[in-house]
Amino acid sequence: MRDVFVVGAGMVRFGRLTERPVADFAAEAVRAALADSGLDRRRIGFSVFGHSQQGRVAGQRVLRELSLTGMPVLNVENACTSGASALHVAWMAVRSGLHDVALVVGMEKMEKGLIPPNPGEFEARLGKTMPAKYALRAKQHMEKYGTTAAQLAMISVKNHKAGALNPYAHYQKELTLEEVLASRPIAEPLTLLQCCPTTDGAAAVVVACGDVARQLQQTPVRIVASAVNSGAYRNSLKDGIASDDDLVVRCSGAAYESAGLGPEDIDVVEVHDAFTVGEMLAYENLGLCPRGEGGRLAWEGATALGGRIPVNPSGGLLSRGHPMGATGVAQIVELTWQLQGRAGPRQVPGAKVALAHVNGGSTPGIGSGSCAIHILAT
Amino acid sequence: MRDVFVVGAGMVRFGRLTERPVADFAAEAVRAALADSGLDRRRIGFSVFGHSQQGRVAGQRVLRELSLTGMPVLNVENACTSGASALHVAWMAVRSGLHDVALVVGMEKMEKGLIPPNPGEFEARLGKTMPAKYALRAKQHMEKYGTTAAQLAMISVKNHKAGALNPYAHYQKELTLEEVLASRPIAEPLTLLQCCPTTDGAAAVVVACGDVARQLQQTPVRIVASAVNSGAYRNSLKDGIASDDDLVVRCSGAAYESAGLGPEDIDVVEVHDAFTVGEMLAYENLGLCPRGEGGRLAWEGATALGGRIPVNPSGGLLSRGHPMGATGVAQIVELTWQLQGRAGPRQVPGAKVALAHVNGGSTPGIGSGSCAIHILAT
Repeated sequence: MRDVFVVGAGMVRFGRLTERPVADFAAEAVRAALADSGLDRRRIGFSVFGHSQQGRVAGQRVLRELSLTGMPVLNVENACTSGASALHVAWMAVRSGLHDVALVVGMEKMEKGLIPPNPGEFEARLGKTMPAKYALRAKQHMEKYGTTAAQLAMISVKNHKAGALNPYAHYQKELTLEEVLASRPIAEPLTLLQCCPTTDGAAAVVVACGDVARQLQQTPVRIVASAVNSGAYRNSLKDGIASDDDLVVRCSGAAYESAGLGPEDIDVVEVHDAFTVGEMLAYENLGLCPRGEGGRLAWEGATALGGRIPVNPSGGLLSRGHPMGATGVAQIVELTWQLQGRAGPRQVPGAKVALAHVNGGSTPGIGSGSCAIHILAT
Repeated sequence: MRDVFVVGAGMVRFGRLTERPVADFAAEAVRAALADSGLDRRRIGFSVFGHSQQGRVAGQRVLRELSLTGMPVLNVENACTSGASALHVAWMAVRSGLHDVALVVGMEKMEKGLIPPNPGEFEARLGKTMPAKYALRAKQHMEKYGTTAAQLAMISVKNHKAGALNPYAHYQKELTLEEVLASRPIAEPLTLLQCCPTTDGAAAVVVACGDVARQLQQTPVRIVASAVNSGAYRNSLKDGIASDDDLVVRCSGAAYESAGLGPEDIDVVEVHDAFTVGEMLAYENLGLCPRGEGGRLAWEGATALGGRIPVNPSGGLLSRGHPMGATGVAQIVELTWQLQGRAGPRQVPGAKVALAHVNGGSTPGIGSGSCAIHILAT
C-alpha cells in the first residue's frame, strides 16, 4: 500500500450563501485547493464529492463549472460525515495505486435547514431531534460527573474566540460566557449559542501519492490513518440513551492503532462540536482526558489556543459553521494549514500531528450512523 | 493488488413495493446474498450502499434491520450508476487489502417517479427530459444509418421475452412487436413499451478476496475490471446533441484494457436499456458491432437468448425494471448467476466472461454524468 498525502487545501468563507448555487461556491473551493497544490488540473484522475442534500450527480455539476470533466466522479453521502467519508474513498483509491492524484470536495447548501428530522423514524415523531439528543447526553454527564452548564458554555466561548481569528469562519466574533449562557434556551442545558448555526459552504483537498507529493512546493501532509465506522445496535431501554461514545472510541481506537500513535501524540484536533456537549464528549471518547473530565478540561483552558491540546482552532462547527458535507473536508483544510504552519494568528506552534473527528447521521437504535477519524502528520 | 470475487448474490423480485419501506426490502436482498455466500454475517467488514433518492444514511437503516451494525458504511450516489459505483468502492476496499469481505447493496424506492427533471437545469426547463434526449438520439441514428422504428421496438420484444423467464423481473410477460409499436407514443420514435417502467427494488452482492473466495462452495466469479467515468464537456451547438457515446467508449475501453480482453471475448452482457435506443447505442459503444449496425444486430436476433452475444438475459431495465440505485447491482447478480450456470431457463450456455454497463445522471453540457463498466469471469 502507498502513502497518501494532502497536497492542496482550499475552502470558501462559510456563511449563508443563499444567492449562489452550490456548484458555484464548490467550484471556488476546488480552484483554491488546486492553486494551493500547484498541480496542473489535468493531473487529477479521480474525484469524490461528499454532500448530503444536493441531489443527483451534484459533483459532476461542480466539475462542469470548472471544465474539469471526463474523469471518474463519485458522490458520497454519510450525513455529517459525508465529506470525511469522501476523503476515505479517495484515500483508498490513491493508497491502492488505482489513481495518483484525487480531488475531494465537501459541500452543502443547507436549503432544508439543519438536518430536518426523518419523518419515518419513531424517535423524531417523539420529539427526539438533534438538540434534544445532545441535551439528554449533557444532562446525563452533569448528573454523573458534576459537569456544569458553565463548563459546557465555555466551549462555545473558546470556539468563537478561535473563529474570530479565522477569515473562513461564518461567525468571526467573540462571545462572553454570559452571552452564551443567557442566549435563548433550545434544549436544557443547551442554549442557542451552544448549537451550530445553519451555514452553507464548501472545502476541497487534493490528495496524492508520495511520488507526486515530493515534486511539489508545499510541505506534504501525510494521512497516517483514515477510519470510518458506524454505530452498533443498542437497546435504549436496557442500555441507556443513545450515545456516540462507543462508536467514537472504536473508530478512533482503530485510527490510533493503524497510525501507531496515541492521544498523547496529537498536537491539534478538530472535533464535531455541532453542540458544545458534543465537543466535550469527543475529548473523552478520543482519549484526550479521562472519562468524566471533559467539562473541566474545557473550563481550565487546556483545549483553547495556547492550551495543552488545542481543539477546534478553526472555530469548529459552532463558529466556522456546519454545512454538513463540507465540515469533514474543512477540518482537513484547517489541520493541513496548521501542520504546514500557515494558520496565521490561530496557529498552534510546532504542530506535527493532527486529528480530525466527525460523526453524525443519527439513527434510532444505533446512535450515530457514521463516524470518521483522520490522523495527519508532517 | 489483490483479486476481488463476487461470492454471494441476491435480490428481491422487482416491482411496485409501495407498502414496504426501502430498508425492509433491501434487508431481504442482503439476507439472500449472505445466504448465497454461505459466509457468517460477522465476516462482513465493510459495506457500501448505492441509491439516489433514499435520504440520509439510508444504508445504516438497512443494516439496523438486519442487526448487522457497527461496521464501516458508505452511501454512494451516482444517479443510475449508484449501485455500480458502490461496487467500485467495495472493489477498491478489498483490492487494496483494507477489507477481506464487503457487502454491496443497490436499492431504490422510486417515490418521486422515474428521475424527475432537475428544475435548476436549463435543459429540463426546455423540455429536454430523459425520454426526449433518448428520442433525439434515436432520430439521429435513424437518419444517419437507416435504423428503423421496428428494429428499436424489437429490443423491447427481446427483453420482455427474457424477462418472462426471470422470476425476479417486474414484468414477466412477453410482448409482440405490434404491441410495442402500437403502445402510447412518449417521444417519437419511442413508445411507452420502449421506456423502462417505474420500479422499486434492491439487489446485493458479497465481494471478497481470493483467500475467502476459495473457502466457499459457490464458483467464485472474479471482477476482472471495474471502471467508472463521467462525461466530458461538449458544446452542443458545435458538437451536436448530447450523447453518451464518447463516455461509454472511453469507460468500456478502460475496462477492456485493464482486463486484457476485448468485446469478442464477452459471452453475455447486461446493458442500460432505460429506453430501447439506449441498448442499441450500447451495442455500438461497447464494440459488440460496428457503428451504425446496432439496429440490425437486434433485428437479426444476435443479442437475444440463443444468439451470438446475448444482451440483457435478465430482461434488462425494460422488463426487470429500473430502481435507479438497484440496477447496477442487479446486473451483477444476474451475471454472477449466468457465470455460475444458475440462470435457469434464461441461462446462456457455457458463459465464461460477462460485461455489465450502466450510465446515467444526465447533466447538460456533459451528457451522462456517470458510466460504470464491470467485467466478470469465472
